[in-house]
Amino acid sequence: MSQQKLAAFKEIVQKINHYHEALSVLFWDLRTGAPKKGVEGRSEVIGMLSTEQFNLSTSDQLGECLDQLSETSVFEGLSNVEQRMVTEYKKDYDRNKKIPVDLFKENVILTSQSESVWEEAKEKSDFSLFQPYLEKVVQFKKQFIEYWGVKGTPYDTLLDIYEPDITAKQLDQVFGSLREKLVPLVAQIGESSNKPNTSFLHQSFSEEKQREFSLFILEEIGYDLGAGRLDKAVHPFMIDLNLRDIRITTNYYPNDITFSLFSSLHEGGHALYEQNISPDLIGTGLCTGASMGIHESQSRFWENMIGRSLPFWKRYYNHLNEVFPQAFSDVSVEDFYRGTNEAKPSLIRIEADELTYNLHVMIRYELEKALFNEDLKVADLPQAWNEKYTEYLGVTPSHDGEGVLQDVHWSGGDFGYFPSYSLGNIYAAQFMNTIQKQLPDFDTYVENGNLQPIKQWLTENIYQYGKLLTPAEILKQVTEEDINPNYLIQYLETKFKGIYGIN
Amino acid sequence: MSQQKLAAFKEIVQKINHYHEALSVLFWDLRTGAPKKGVEGRSEVIGMLSTEQFNLSTSDQLGECLDQLSETSVFEGLSNVEQRMVTEYKKDYDRNKKIPVDLFKENVILTSQSESVWEEAKEKSDFSLFQPYLEKVVQFKKQFIEYWGVKGTPYDTLLDIYEPDITAKQLDQVFGSLREKLVPLVAQIGESSNKPNTSFLHQSFSEEKQREFSLFILEEIGYDLGAGRLDKAVHPFMIDLNLRDIRITTNYYPNDITFSLFSSLHEGGHALYEQNISPDLIGTGLCTGASMGIHESQSRFWENMIGRSLPFWKRYYNHLNEVFPQAFSDVSVEDFYRGTNEAKPSLIRIEADELTYNLHVMIRYELEKALFNEDLKVADLPQAWNEKYTEYLGVTPSHDGEGVLQDVHWSGGDFGYFPSYSLGNIYAAQFMNTIQKQLPDFDTYVENGNLQPIKQWLTENIYQYGKLLTPAEILKQVTEEDINPNYLIQYLETKFKGIYGIN
Repeated sequence: MSQQKLAAFKEIVQKINHYHEALSVLFWDLRTGAPKKGVEGRSEVIGMLSTEQFNLSTSDQLGECLDQLSETSVFEGLSNVEQRMVTEYKKDYDRNKKIPVDLFKENVILTSQSESVWEEAKEKSDFSLFQPYLEKVVQFKKQFIEYWGVKGTPYDTLLDIYEPDITAKQLDQVFGSLREKLVPLVAQIGESSNKPNTSFLHQSFSEEKQREFSLFILEEIGYDLGAGRLDKAVHPFMIDLNLRDIRITTNYYPNDITFSLFSSLHEGGHALYEQNISPDLIGTGLCTGASMGIHESQSRFWENMIGRSLPFWKRYYNHLNEVFPQAFSDVSVEDFYRGTNEAKPSLIRIEADELTYNLHVMIRYELEKALFNEDLKVADLPQAWNEKYTEYLGVTPSHDGEGVLQDVHWSGGDFGYFPSYSLGNIYAAQFMNTIQKQLPDFDTYVENGNLQPIKQWLTENIYQYGKLLTPAEILKQVTEEDINPNYLIQYLETKFKGIYGIN
Repeated sequence: MSQQKLAAFKEIVQKINHYHEALSVLFWDLRTGAPKKGVEGRSEVIGMLSTEQFNLSTSDQLGECLDQLSETSVFEGLSNVEQRMVTEYKKDYDRNKKIPVDLFKENVILTSQSESVWEEAKEKSDFSLFQPYLEKVVQFKKQFIEYWGVKGTPYDTLLDIYEPDITAKQLDQVFGSLREKLVPLVAQIGESSNKPNTSFLHQSFSEEKQREFSLFILEEIGYDLGAGRLDKAVHPFMIDLNLRDIRITTNYYPNDITFSLFSSLHEGGHALYEQNISPDLIGTGLCTGASMGIHESQSRFWENMIGRSLPFWKRYYNHLNEVFPQAFSDVSVEDFYRGTNEAKPSLIRIEADELTYNLHVMIRYELEKALFNEDLKVADLPQAWNEKYTEYLGVTPSHDGEGVLQDVHWSGGDFGYFPSYSLGNIYAAQFMNTIQKQLPDFDTYVENGNLQPIKQWLTENIYQYGKLLTPAEILKQVTEEDINPNYLIQYLETKFKGIYGIN
């Protein structure tokens, strides 16, 4: 009987995954050159398939399977993987079923309107257009939290969606430490007279050559192009179609060599994670990253800790010069390394450097936590935003378009997502500290372009597990510690004090 | 009550179409560069979506809608479009429901095995490997015909799938006329001493430039690249995702300018048809070509009757020379025209020229008709094949790989499909005859690159109707005649006698 339920459960999971793959192909296609005039028709297809997938993941049939498989006597007889499948799908099932269907549908319509109003508001730099929609989105989210149940604080319930088990209390400590150390560091850097030259990064670089160099670097880090591909898209992304089809995109700026290169490395890091999940997890729904934060740790690791390091460029600078002869003929590898690591306060998160990025995230964290836990009013957001930018980064938006309206996330109700970005940096630094202990020749490996042992280490310790372990379990298993921001602080201090000649 | 059924019917049709679009995107993606290692996983997704689509198109719910909407009193109250929808979906529904489910599934497995055995047999030129599978495929098809019901002859039932209402009796007359006139013409050409030079077509042509020229020509004929795109694929094809997303593919041979150019024009012809169907038919399931034959008439019209004509090259030869400077500096436009129209007997259908192509099709027609109507044995196919090639084309395959094993169609059970190719040529010549009467300046239009009136005429007379009319209805409405091979014969005789200097 329970064997039958298990088989039925696995069949439903399989089907949900198949819908996921079909939808991912449609999404990828839309972002990589689908004809504009066909988008309207395509949206209907996406709507239909999403509905089928949603209906399946909230079906009574799945609910019955999950109920029976969750009974202690049955659950204990399941394999490790099966237990994790049941736990994960039950969590999603309960989360979706707790919301009344009508409220759910109203919310879909609301967020879709809200996103399109946000677009207009951002363009016009007019928060007042967006404010009534954002107020409703927050109001809906608060209702959802009540249905889901408050975990610690209301905001904790939202955090749990993106980073299971992380709490606002933990994040307060984490961001508290970052603020204490990084705000003064950013100020020191601002005052440094020893600033890197970046002019050589902004010459004319052909798209074809940029693509050639990105592909070369991707193969060097171990991205399997037989199970993936690199395309062009306005906003770079990684997308997992199936375990053997993990695609990435980048964009090419004619006068900026860094964008395509580092976004390829960033998405390549996400892709390496996905490509090296154990094939045993195919069809289980666990064939993906452990969490947003762990995923981001891998994109940041390959983009910043490897790709923006001096040993990396000691190896690959010659090749860059072969692809772009003359462009850097009078630039030393050290100057190139310093140029690609310029750090300075700015207003726009997605353009921020490795160091200041965390402060952008911290501001958003503090504001969204205040919205849900401390009754900050939506109407007061623009002012609160500007005050925090002035305080932490020393820059003040001149209008809301480059301030509170810059990110799409809140318009779609994605509160609790932002912290993942900094969690990624923090995890990455913790992992880096452990790797360097376990692979003492780490820097030499990088300097020799011998990246295979590093990928191997990450596969054995992180990638292979996919979603079989929670983020906290992976972190503990790998580093023997809980979340700890000190490694990131130490890494950033060492790196940027070195670059800016600060004692 | 019948209003409710009509709404329910339209909703099911909509959903079937959405599955069709999703499947088409997956198919397109597989053919244009999806990573090889991901194909196995992707096949499962395609299998799942195809099953969902098939289940829907054979569902009791659809059956009930169709039953009620087909009742005379209800049917007569429907609009023209609705009537046609009911007729079309009922035809498909009945065809699928008449086959017992188990037999249907067995057949899916059989043809999938048969296709893969065919591949091996073709590679090894070993018909004996394939023979037992082909025998079973034919046996299954004969059973299917019994369930479907014999229309005239058993083979007529198969013809009806691809070209509704066409009969073997009609095709006997049509192919009889073609045989009588074209076999001697091909022989005369073989003996001609005035053969075109083709050496200049085989120089080195860069892929980038070939693509540039194909895109230019596609825009000239009126293909809307805002509602389509041109990609590279091993075997060129056109695929309709939705009315505003009609894609084509081509392939580039480094030493052959003709392949990419004429396959782009061929697929472009298919695409022009799809892009110009009336938007009123969106969501009705009638937003596609009237039949295989009518569709093929449009690809052949644009590829051969326009693209391989002298007026066309009088207009576009200069542009070709701009894209490929020097390549044709000592070749006159007349010689270029003659070179692209070389006709000679060959063994392989897909490499055949405009003239001899029809004889390749005729041979297949005669053989598959004999298999179903006259008890030709599968074991006797190779010999019969070789005899007909010798008789009609004067060439004899040296092994079955370049003979009876060359085409994939029969391995998948697609009997009755081949005649569509020649029907396309015949229809195209009939349409051409009518256009030239109604647009007396036709040749001048082409010579001036003023192709818009021609596309307009085709849209008004053929394209806009999609599947709203049957092929016979369209033919009658446009040409005031039934199918008539004489226009094709006359066109081919004039064209090729001219090129080869035969009186």
